[in-house]
Amino acid sequence: MSRTEPSMLETLAARLREALGQDAVIASPAAHHRGDRAVPGAADTRFLLVLPHDVEGVQAALRLAHGTRTPVVPRGAGSGLSGGAVAIDGGIVLGLERLDAIREIDVLDEVAVVEAGVITADLSAALAPEGFFYAPDPASDTISTLGGNIATNAGGMRCAKYGVTRESVLALEAVLADGTLLRTGHRSLKGVTGLDLTQLLIGSEGTLAVIVAATVRIHPLPTARRTVLARFPTTAQAVGGVNAISRSPVRPAATELLDAGAVADIDALGGSSLGGDGTGAVLLLELDGYGIEEQTTDLVAALTGAGGRVQVVAAAQEAARLWELRRSSRAAGGGRARLGEDVAVPKSRLAEMFTQLEEIGRRHGVATSAVAHAGDGNLHPALSLPATPEDPAGALPGPILAAADEVVRAALELGGTISGEHGIGTAKQHWLDLELTPTSRELQHRVKRSFDPRGLLNPGKAL
Amino acid sequence: MSRTEPSMLETLAARLREALGQDAVIASPAAHHRGDRAVPGAADTRFLLVLPHDVEGVQAALRLAHGTRTPVVPRGAGSGLSGGAVAIDGGIVLGLERLDAIREIDVLDEVAVVEAGVITADLSAALAPEGFFYAPDPASDTISTLGGNIATNAGGMRCAKYGVTRESVLALEAVLADGTLLRTGHRSLKGVTGLDLTQLLIGSEGTLAVIVAATVRIHPLPTARRTVLARFPTTAQAVGGVNAISRSPVRPAATELLDAGAVADIDALGGSSLGGDGTGAVLLLELDGYGIEEQTTDLVAALTGAGGRVQVVAAAQEAARLWELRRSSRAAGGGRARLGEDVAVPKSRLAEMFTQLEEIGRRHGVATSAVAHAGDGNLHPALSLPATPEDPAGALPGPILAAADEVVRAALELGGTISGEHGIGTAKQHWLDLELTPTSRELQHRVKRSFDPRGLLNPGKAL
Repeated sequence: MSRTEPSMLETLAARLREALGQDAVIASPAAHHRGDRAVPGAADTRFLLVLPHDVEGVQAALRLAHGTRTPVVPRGAGSGLSGGAVAIDGGIVLGLERLDAIREIDVLDEVAVVEAGVITADLSAALAPEGFFYAPDPASDTISTLGGNIATNAGGMRCAKYGVTRESVLALEAVLADGTLLRTGHRSLKGVTGLDLTQLLIGSEGTLAVIVAATVRIHPLPTARRTVLARFPTTAQAVGGVNAISRSPVRPAATELLDAGAVADIDALGGSSLGGDGTGAVLLLELDGYGIEEQTTDLVAALTGAGGRVQVVAAAQEAARLWELRRSSRAAGGGRARLGEDVAVPKSRLAEMFTQLEEIGRRHGVATSAVAHAGDGNLHPALSLPATPEDPAGALPGPILAAADEVVRAALELGGTISGEHGIGTAKQHWLDLELTPTSRELQHRVKRSFDPRGLLNPGKAL
Repeated sequence: MSRTEPSMLETLAARLREALGQDAVIASPAAHHRGDRAVPGAADTRFLLVLPHDVEGVQAALRLAHGTRTPVVPRGAGSGLSGGAVAIDGGIVLGLERLDAIREIDVLDEVAVVEAGVITADLSAALAPEGFFYAPDPASDTISTLGGNIATNAGGMRCAKYGVTRESVLALEAVLADGTLLRTGHRSLKGVTGLDLTQLLIGSEGTLAVIVAATVRIHPLPTARRTVLARFPTTAQAVGGVNAISRSPVRPAATELLDAGAVADIDALGGSSLGGDGTGAVLLLELDGYGIEEQTTDLVAALTGAGGRVQVVAAAQEAARLWELRRSSRAAGGGRARLGEDVAVPKSRLAEMFTQLEEIGRRHGVATSAVAHAGDGNLHPALSLPATPEDPAGALPGPILAAADEVVRAALELGGTISGEHGIGTAKQHWLDLELTPTSRELQHRVKRSFDPRGLLNPGKAL
């Protein structure tokens, strides 16, 4: 192509600028817009970054993309971990970050109406003065957006008690591939009119429509919170503690299991002393709500009975510090070639999963550790090796990839799933057939085509 | 057709008997299999009642129906209230009642695996010795099936706290129109692999697939329960009580609002004295879980502040009697021509909905009353007139139908929905376009076709 002839992307950029405004189209986006936090995307990807100012802008962008058969990758904050927001060569990355209005908070209806680009933690910050909070708490909540959370059905630490993102979404505004606006759902807590397209869109990773706004449930702030720390000699015994909780009537808001490796990494990073003194694993728990003393009594009894050394953390500052340490676990173990996995198993199988993780690591000569949202069986194994200068940028050493493959297969064999909360994106597609039957996959593709017959919305992702 | 030549249904019956066994096919079903509890179906409907013994039987029946292009109406207990199970002339009614095994209860995983024909209350009865219960509690729970509950996304009284049926379903086994078995979902509490077909099937009223089994969440029995009764001078003040609860941190497991008419009907039926002494409306509430005294204190404060005369019901027998009375409300007002409606509104609009209901009744000369699952904005208005001998069987007087139409429209204008928990079936289809946009309806039909291209599963229902 000669220099004087504009490329197709340049022509599209001009038309997009005309429709959405000059500042809505960025022809040379920064590299971080090409990928997410785990998958950087290919350096030679040519794409337009489009940042509409409002819902009409999203519609206009999709209409133009549809007319020109241009693939569109919807993007929240790019904080995903499975490549769902990775740019496609010759396509548009449609960033929703400017749709950042909290349109409404209604404590009597117990809902908030938010746009897709609102940062998740900002919603809870806005709700706090009203005595309310938004329950889903992905670890990324200070950087990720509600739209992205909904598109991936994001999880977090409070899900066993409060549900995943899905349980907090009542209604959606979404733009279809051809630019048509779709409204789904209801503002009342109940509603059963027709097929539940709201639920179908949640977790569809941008393959069916572009979510632009949502009506979400909000909850009253708990009357009390209490942090409990329990140290166990072994991971198996810590899982025994989780099982003892299951048999009891108490249900913590968070039940985080850190194995010896995770504890060591966190202690090294934070200068803390979670481990040591024969500690093989730690459960960090939060209780909330009414009857906090009764809850504490039952929880301590369950954990002690399972062999835990239990510490009730009364001081708010100390509790906050412990949760800060837990949240740092993704950053822990720095300076190494490292893969963070995301699988889930039925929670009674957690002990076996931890055992298998260790064995797999040993077999491949890869260091392993894991934190688990143990209350819902969701495990984040970390697989690492010392970094070597020979590793090409972004590529992980073969033994780590081989070990990760075995970890995912082990989770499936224990009755689990290849992704607990991070999604499929591009990173996990090669495992889809291990979990889903051909019947299920074919149906999903048919549903995809019924929404997006031209296959323009996040093609090659998720399904 | 001559008498010696078998009809198509007779031929099909013979083939079904060959595949499923003699006793699986009933060629002259009892009249009650023709309809549900609200819609009787046409007396001259010719259909086969097929009662498979197992999943393979369901598959075989659907394969034969598919091959012969015979419409199939899936049926649980026929306890629905919107005509979803009404038989189709020349079709099969596929009853799931013989698939009644509770396959598994696992308290460590906090799940039960059940077949579609299990009676809902039987599951909780089986769970009680383990210290667990199944949360969704449609009023029909002693007669309805889990499969039917899931197909209609049934509600109940505990939904504001525990969620509707949807929130308790993790995985499904369903048979597609051509007889193929589909497995969806996961046993872990989290899982985000591909489109969530589980959620799409829930509430689809048998139009996408026939649900044959489910993995459902179970919860530990609460450590305590407490019933509270509050009498208010007016319905508006009772709604003020609901709003006061919303502003407080306490969340009852059930928040039932009975207006003056409902209270009078129940008192007449049960010989009780909920009403009287200037009572214009009643809130009947249940608290459960830890800190029951603290919860009671906060609840009583909220209700008293809103002008309620509050009675904490300490005696278990008295509490049970009150809930029995509440459950009797559908039977109340007998001997009259009566329509029970089901709408939902954002709960802050409940007072307006009650006012409109009264006005609509007055305008049409129809007696009105209502009970509401007020915690989730779900209202069941009853519209009635004295029965007259002239009414044809099953037909309701014109003024009742006209008033019902206005009630549904009023709910929509208040931001609500045409069905809170009963579903669309055949009874509410003529209102679908008031709530759903053409875009939404067209998408729903496309999704339907992607599952059931021949349009054989419950055609003419729900969508």
